[in-house]
Amino acid sequence: MSEHIGFVGLGNMGHAIAENILKAGYDTHVYNRDGSKAKALVAAGAKQGMRPADVVEPGGVVMTMVAHDAALEDVTLGPDGILARLGPGGVHISMSTVSPATARKMTELHEQEGCTYIAAPVFGRPDAAAARRLWVCCAGATEAKERVQPLLKATGQGIFDFGDDPAMANVVKLCGNFLVVSAMEALAEALTLAEKHGIDRSAVAQFLTQTAFACPIYQNYGRMIAEKRYTPAGFQMVLGLKDVNLMLDTAEQAKMPLPLANLVHDHLLSGIAKGRGELDWSALAQIVGEAAGVE
Amino acid sequence: MSEHIGFVGLGNMGHAIAENILKAGYDTHVYNRDGSKAKALVAAGAKQGMRPADVVEPGGVVMTMVAHDAALEDVTLGPDGILARLGPGGVHISMSTVSPATARKMTELHEQEGCTYIAAPVFGRPDAAAARRLWVCCAGATEAKERVQPLLKATGQGIFDFGDDPAMANVVKLCGNFLVVSAMEALAEALTLAEKHGIDRSAVAQFLTQTAFACPIYQNYGRMIAEKRYTPAGFQMVLGLKDVNLMLDTAEQAKMPLPLANLVHDHLLSGIAKGRGELDWSALAQIVGEAAGVE
Amino acid sequence: MSEHIGFVGLGNMGHAIAENILKAGYDTHVYNRDGSKAKALVAAGAKQGMRPADVVEPGGVVMTMVAHDAALEDVTLGPDGILARLGPGGVHISMSTVSPATARKMTELHEQEGCTYIAAPVFGRPDAAAARRLWVCCAGATEAKERVQPLLKATGQGIFDFGDDPAMANVVKLCGNFLVVSAMEALAEALTLAEKHGIDRSAVAQFLTQTAFACPIYQNYGRMIAEKRYTPAGFQMVLGLKDVNLMLDTAEQAKMPLPLANLVHDHLLSGIAKGRGELDWSALAQIVGEAAGVE
Amino acid sequence: MSEHIGFVGLGNMGHAIAENILKAGYDTHVYNRDGSKAKALVAAGAKQGMRPADVVEPGGVVMTMVAHDAALEDVTLGPDGILARLGPGGVHISMSTVSPATARKMTELHEQEGCTYIAAPVFGRPDAAAARRLWVCCAGATEAKERVQPLLKATGQGIFDFGDDPAMANVVKLCGNFLVVSAMEALAEALTLAEKHGIDRSAVAQFLTQTAFACPIYQNYGRMIAEKRYTPAGFQMVLGLKDVNLMLDTAEQAKMPLPLANLVHDHLLSGIAKGRGELDWSALAQIVGEAAGVE
Repeated sequence: MSEHIGFVGLGNMGHAIAENILKAGYDTHVYNRDGSKAKALVAAGAKQGMRPADVVEPGGVVMTMVAHDAALEDVTLGPDGILARLGPGGVHISMSTVSPATARKMTELHEQEGCTYIAAPVFGRPDAAAARRLWVCCAGATEAKERVQPLLKATGQGIFDFGDDPAMANVVKLCGNFLVVSAMEALAEALTLAEKHGIDRSAVAQFLTQTAFACPIYQNYGRMIAEKRYTPAGFQMVLGLKDVNLMLDTAEQAKMPLPLANLVHDHLLSGIAKGRGELDWSALAQIVGEAAGVE
Repeated sequence: MSEHIGFVGLGNMGHAIAENILKAGYDTHVYNRDGSKAKALVAAGAKQGMRPADVVEPGGVVMTMVAHDAALEDVTLGPDGILARLGPGGVHISMSTVSPATARKMTELHEQEGCTYIAAPVFGRPDAAAARRLWVCCAGATEAKERVQPLLKATGQGIFDFGDDPAMANVVKLCGNFLVVSAMEALAEALTLAEKHGIDRSAVAQFLTQTAFACPIYQNYGRMIAEKRYTPAGFQMVLGLKDVNLMLDTAEQAKMPLPLANLVHDHLLSGIAKGRGELDWSALAQIVGEAAGVE
Repeated sequence: MSEHIGFVGLGNMGHAIAENILKAGYDTHVYNRDGSKAKALVAAGAKQGMRPADVVEPGGVVMTMVAHDAALEDVTLGPDGILARLGPGGVHISMSTVSPATARKMTELHEQEGCTYIAAPVFGRPDAAAARRLWVCCAGATEAKERVQPLLKATGQGIFDFGDDPAMANVVKLCGNFLVVSAMEALAEALTLAEKHGIDRSAVAQFLTQTAFACPIYQNYGRMIAEKRYTPAGFQMVLGLKDVNLMLDTAEQAKMPLPLANLVHDHLLSGIAKGRGELDWSALAQIVGEAAGVE
Repeated sequence: MSEHIGFVGLGNMGHAIAENILKAGYDTHVYNRDGSKAKALVAAGAKQGMRPADVVEPGGVVMTMVAHDAALEDVTLGPDGILARLGPGGVHISMSTVSPATARKMTELHEQEGCTYIAAPVFGRPDAAAARRLWVCCAGATEAKERVQPLLKATGQGIFDFGDDPAMANVVKLCGNFLVVSAMEALAEALTLAEKHGIDRSAVAQFLTQTAFACPIYQNYGRMIAEKRYTPAGFQMVLGLKDVNLMLDTAEQAKMPLPLANLVHDHLLSGIAKGRGELDWSALAQIVGEAAGVE
């Protein structure tokens, strides 16, 4: 009989991952606050729980992919939460982008219950998740990591291990997201500069992302920013701002300025101030353009 | 008999390109202010001129690759310069990273003499030049571009055309350099953030540049910045600052703020203020580290 | 018989204010976590409490001047706190620099107990407090503000009213502190620029602060920064960073970038990263100097 | 008979100063490119020249107050210029805000002709000039400075001496202008923050500029920025940007980042990009507001 897996959080990313878990043959139990999001998974064979605790098997494995630190605390702690039921021997694989501080707190609370918290944040947008092409950045207790290895492999194309302390995986994830949003800012400024000189944005984007910057991040965001196409949002500005604030907080804890993060922070915040918080976070390029007098 | 080509400027980049021209079978005539730099090329069959004009054949083709706008003016204008001898039908392929304003001035002056100025700045560091793996970004009069196509092919792996106005190729080149230096800044901040949290810089650099940022710019600069190895300099900080100032001037002419360029400008300038102008420009990462209290 | 006044928080500022309350003839009851700080006041006639609640008279007036939001919550809430004893008709004058969000929370909690929370943050350093030359920026319920008017007059040279909502006084206080720290940053950059050109820092500071900038903020900080004298600290860098973070949080809540605050934030954080958190916050000028290669 | 004085440049500032020179009883000869600006002065007794050289008496004193470095070169050099006629013993008092580099060049060229170039840039807006309330910041050869002392006294309320090298007065002037524009930026951010929290901008401006920031710069610009009233322009954004670029260039020559100048540079440039270059430079506050989503 196949292994029981709990999965909590069925947003764009979580849904795609849960689907791959299910396809890989696991006995998949899913929970989402808005239960209607589970419909397709249930049709494909998943079981739905009404509370986070419902999808947890004592001593088993549960995965979470939620929007922010508070949501992770909501689904994990409290009487209906994961932790109350997970118990000795259980493993919680936390794939959300949360702060290292939250990871530390979670690690301790799980240890007190005899179970293990592993951080396994991922790189890739929903379409990469669907295609099992995520990169997983993993940290936590060795034994638990070994146990869940096949499960993680079912979600992505590569797993990178950053040691025993789960918080470190979250730091690395934030470093990566920081590179992503920095690349967007750079593309936004470069393509606006081209436009202001009368050069076609797409021609420049194509040239640069086929040559020196031939990697998917630059190609995808280069296309979006060149074409000024910020819907549908793969990742909304409001979530982007949350992420950048995690970067800044994580830097502040380590006593380190992060000036490029300040810059993108201000552009995201400005976009939100103008009522565009639901656009893709690459819409920070609009703010760059508007400062230059172009629409 | 093979075509006569003049080549002016034998720094790291120019030397590698001239060597490929020579290998491609052209009758290559070279000039460099410090003549000793021509030794190897002469040994391989090139002819050396004592003045820029010496390497020019009237109505022929001459290529220049020099360090900055003033050097381009020096070798082009004046009694010993290229322009005085190039004459009707001649083509000047200018590969240097110079300002669009200089390109415009040069275009006009060449037109007045009946010859043509083409801008063909390149992407790639000296080792890429040696391996004929440069990317050429080209603009200027169509006929002249067609004429020199084989020559440009001898220098790189791809040629991208940005229309009739030579200045546009320089804008695109500056956009590209801007992406490069922005990537360095982002890497510097990300890897310092990792270090401040006790994570190995190289492990993070390898993870990120094998996955989401798997392109040579990130891989090369990621390695240098992770290892804090800023010599030998592929491109010195003082030249980097010159380039960033070209970006800022070009943006100012178009009435556009370029805030990320301000940030790297200040880090490069600070490195120079501390006496490190001859390190590789990726040493802006030292300034990022020092602001965070790490060496 | 004179009116009973509770006073909580005897740091540099609080001590000076409490002394003026006492001198004005109030029956002054003081509390400080480190009780030894009360010695001089007790010698002058104040009574000392062992817990915050000890200095509160039900229905009376209590003043607090503590270091940060958490300290205000500590002395106000909980079984030994002010609020448990203040009761119907009581007034809590909160002079600390805290966030508008904390002010809002406090306002509600006091209302629930039938008493009133007034925000009355002040401008001025400890010597101004001692000389009764503070400026008080006040907001809260009208009746309570009228009742405590004589008390506030005993602390400063002017009282400015910003309406019914206590949080607004905190916003104004943060706006003022923002102007102060911005002036420091400007002085730091200007005087370093003069020094780098071989001009005496003090001569420039004196000229500018006797003419166009003839106000105490510029004169005092101009002198300190010109002379690079950052001890004794009137206000430590670590507290300065806390303040700047309050500004940034308050701006973020209102969806507004505050780029000049980012700049000073990073300079303060860098100073702290270098182990100088106990210097006066004007020592952000050291970071400006070091970036320019001067000590 | 009264002393002959030449005066070149009758913009808002120059006109007010020339008027005071005339009132002080000097035999005043004026020149302005647009001659119609001289009408009122001529009516009051000044003589008008058709070329800069016309107002110069060999060996005499000539004052210039023009818009930028290029204008100073125009009126000084060339066959119709001041220098050709000033000759041995003459003194040129240059009151314009120009770069230290231009001051150095001018100093040398004047020395070659046996005359003296003194830099005497001033602080104050046109109304202060009219009221003889300017502050003069002076540097140059001692003997010449002594000779023109009475003349400088006729223009302002105080003269500050920064030594023998004229360029130093220009550095100090730029330091002062830097403080001014930094104060504007700080006011813009502070008052927008207040507005975003629903607080009246003018109430905050009045409070802060009557208390901790009770000096004219804060009072005047505080009023303009609080009321969002940017016409008539005392000093246009385009001139403001020119000034900030002088600051940045002067810092770059000394190898020093000037991050706060970058910030105001970008806000001014953005205003100009949006077509507002003729507003008062305090209109940089509009850019701050727009980034926060307010008009």
